[in-house]
Amino acid sequence: MEALPIPVLGTVVGGRHEPVDDAWGTVEATIELADGVSGDMLDGLSEFSHLEVIFVFHRVDPSAGLPVRRRPRDRDDLPEVGALAQRHAKRRGRLGLSRCEIVGVGDRSITVRGLDAIDGTPVLDLKPWFDAFGPRGPVREPEWVSSIVASYYEPSGE
Amino acid sequence: MEALPIPVLGTVVGGRHEPVDDAWGTVEATIELADGVSGDMLDGLSEFSHLEVIFVFHRVDPSAGLPVRRRPRDRDDLPEVGALAQRHAKRRGRLGLSRCEIVGVGDRSITVRGLDAIDGTPVLDLKPWFDAFGPRGPVREPEWVSSIVASYYEPSGE
Repeated sequence: MEALPIPVLGTVVGGRHEPVDDAWGTVEATIELADGVSGDMLDGLSEFSHLEVIFVFHRVDPSAGLPVRRRPRDRDDLPEVGALAQRHAKRRGRLGLSRCEIVGVGDRSITVRGLDAIDGTPVLDLKPWFDAFGPRGPVREPEWVSSIVASYYEPSGE
Repeated sequence: MEALPIPVLGTVVGGRHEPVDDAWGTVEATIELADGVSGDMLDGLSEFSHLEVIFVFHRVDPSAGLPVRRRPRDRDDLPEVGALAQRHAKRRGRLGLSRCEIVGVGDRSITVRGLDAIDGTPVLDLKPWFDAFGPRGPVREPEWVSSIVASYYEPSGE
């Protein structure tokens, strides 16, 4: 199995310490750049409202076996679909990808709101959200997605 | 510099053979799964209209030096900003992230439209687009972004 080494850009610090399914909307955390990464790479990022974060689901143990197909959230009322037809953490490569709000940009860190990654998560890349680079054309998704997203970004009360 | 090995999930086949800046909107290509990856992982993906693709800008040579700050597209009329405040390929980790339309899903491949990755690009992950997982709240971006995105997804005529 070919693998490519991707350097760690930073780490999620703060926010939640355990992965949970829902209510990430108001969770705040900080992404701190790794040693050796220049803070100047963040110049101009504060002019954007939203950030895309590519990270690693580091708590997932790939040696434990990753499902090829599963029911989202293991819910009996949802259909079994392939691992690449869902966004769950137990996936080949263990990559996570989320959009969050930029609360503030420091010298070597970014404070964000609504990032669904826990304290200690390795971050591989950050990209500013360009609205024109969202999906083009009408969006279609299966019925089961509505069950997953219903409470995902609701306020957490934390 | 800590790096994490991320397995290659597949490869972009077809479409453009050279990276260019604009007019990706109608370019079609196929993402073929790597040997050993089960095609069953794609089950259910055809119910989605759009796909997110995490890939590697494999033509970028990191040993040649990556800019900490640069003017987008090296255009004199655009401001110099940090590498993480733009989406350019010459970035630490060399990760690309794009959304494209799903044209069709085969046994071990997905045909897509509007993916800005060239033939031979290693793909690390695929995720279906959930509309509710787009940016929450009003989007703000600096003026210079409009120059970059203006013709990015226009029809290519190819």
